[in-house]
Amino acid sequence: MVKLAVDMMGGDDAPNIVLEGVEKAVNEFEDLEIILFGDEKQCHIQHPRVEVRHTTEEITMEDEPVRAIKRKKDSSMVRMAEAVKNGEADACVSAGNTGALMSSGLFIVGRLPGVARPALVVTLPTVSGKGVVLLDVGANADAKAEHLYQNAVLGHIYAQKLRGIETPKVALLNIGTEAKKGNSLTKEAFNLMSKTEQFHFVGNIEAKSIMEDEADVIVTDGYTGNMILKNLEGIAKSFGKIIKNDLLHNMKNKLAALIMKKDIKHIAKQLDYTEYGGSVLLGLDGIVVKAHGSSNAKAFYSAIRQAKIAADTRIVENMREKVAE
Amino acid sequence: MVKLAVDMMGGDDAPNIVLEGVEKAVNEFEDLEIILFGDEKQCHIQHPRVEVRHTTEEITMEDEPVRAIKRKKDSSMVRMAEAVKNGEADACVSAGNTGALMSSGLFIVGRLPGVARPALVVTLPTVSGKGVVLLDVGANADAKAEHLYQNAVLGHIYAQKLRGIETPKVALLNIGTEAKKGNSLTKEAFNLMSKTEQFHFVGNIEAKSIMEDEADVIVTDGYTGNMILKNLEGIAKSFGKIIKNDLLHNMKNKLAALIMKKDIKHIAKQLDYTEYGGSVLLGLDGIVVKAHGSSNAKAFYSAIRQAKIAADTRIVENMREKVAE
Repeated sequence: MVKLAVDMMGGDDAPNIVLEGVEKAVNEFEDLEIILFGDEKQCHIQHPRVEVRHTTEEITMEDEPVRAIKRKKDSSMVRMAEAVKNGEADACVSAGNTGALMSSGLFIVGRLPGVARPALVVTLPTVSGKGVVLLDVGANADAKAEHLYQNAVLGHIYAQKLRGIETPKVALLNIGTEAKKGNSLTKEAFNLMSKTEQFHFVGNIEAKSIMEDEADVIVTDGYTGNMILKNLEGIAKSFGKIIKNDLLHNMKNKLAALIMKKDIKHIAKQLDYTEYGGSVLLGLDGIVVKAHGSSNAKAFYSAIRQAKIAADTRIVENMREKVAE
Repeated sequence: MVKLAVDMMGGDDAPNIVLEGVEKAVNEFEDLEIILFGDEKQCHIQHPRVEVRHTTEEITMEDEPVRAIKRKKDSSMVRMAEAVKNGEADACVSAGNTGALMSSGLFIVGRLPGVARPALVVTLPTVSGKGVVLLDVGANADAKAEHLYQNAVLGHIYAQKLRGIETPKVALLNIGTEAKKGNSLTKEAFNLMSKTEQFHFVGNIEAKSIMEDEADVIVTDGYTGNMILKNLEGIAKSFGKIIKNDLLHNMKNKLAALIMKKDIKHIAKQLDYTEYGGSVLLGLDGIVVKAHGSSNAKAFYSAIRQAKIAADTRIVENMREKVAE
């Protein structure tokens, strides 16, 4: 049996999409129990494996992260994180304020011994449909080379356990493929990684090859990773606008687009990284999963499933051992 | 009359595309003279305003930049840069080894007094079709806050002179729009820029908004800028593959795509940043334009036209004055 703590109040369309996602998850997995933290009056779920814990406060998107988790002690997010800390739950999931969730991870759940800085990890779509693990996408904006090295170790275990890849190919995101390329940070990180036996390092990878299935894990600092993630997000949006402006201005094209509509939707879905579940905060003494703020019920369900797999595969215990090396 | 020095031997399809581009340019502009540097045996152009200077060496894509320009004294690239340095030419254009061209700019043409680090600038397409200036895209991978500030000054003048925008909106690329967001570099740069009167600073911009016409100039460091450029390049390629795999697998969609083909090509053209000309190395005591390595004749022509406009609008003299402030 896996027990997850879930933040009922976080996300643009909370609590409705959270409750829908939870319902789908407990119906899907018979070995799953959920503790829901939030306003009990808004909870309409009745299920033997769902328990509701009433909370009186909420952390909003506008809250300053560290202050929020220190002051709003009875918020759904803080109480959810405490359930992981005190061992009541194996993992937690929230679609709320990212900064506050990262602070909850750091200050309530706590770091694994030996981990300098936790990292946020996502799985991006690739041309083959297989997907690629990218980290850090925003936890540590001022990284040092040893943090990138540690990200590689965490990403390696994540790809092994959550994605079932026995020997993941780990690459360093850089502005050239040659060993000497990059800024001082990536040059130093390349040196550290090229000597390792802890994971299978395949060298530098350029941003143009992220979706080309050349690696299973791509390592970068939180500033660059967040930049790439937002660039991908923006390009999809901007391309959409340009296509709408330029392509659909006449009846002929509108009809042609209609013919392809279903297949275009299928592609858009493939490119949508929320389909791959949430992002996971790695390097903590517990599992913390961030569902996208604009998650729908299906995306929130994916994030729950991801947390469950992480718990099932004992990812934290694996990281504890590997980091100690 | 504007006189340009052109590297005949640089680029994947040199010298043919270079010669075609040059021919188109001298036919288009009656006030343009070109000095072509390269192997005279391979030059088939006969034109009263095109002069050929024979060179015996070539810098290849594999050459180590600084060593190449120091040792290959009779290479087309080095001699082209020298023509700018000694005042024979107003500007120069090459599609060759980017690193070697940057080194030629730094060590042969030389920096403007007061410029710490030159920056490479490109114009990216936007939703409105207007385009946006992005710099630095690769000259200075380890930037400090004062370099970003100087990039803003150079970008401001570039947008004024080459793009005809009287008061360009200058934004700082960052991982959040709020003043406190970013890594230590962007936080410090934000502070410097928010106090300035040298240009119109509009605050932080996220990577998802680059193509959304929110700014005329976007400033970043050479590592991040290069990353963004390559990410844009890669996404177009990867999307193309996914569409080909997923969309065109049946006759119905193939026919529909055929109907839209012409308009789709028009969009692809709009998104193709080579259409906007080459990238310019700013902050030098002369104009150095880098045409894309895989330029076709039209793209090389665009780069020549860009160099001509930069010379016509006396961009170097403008930068000299503004940097001195």
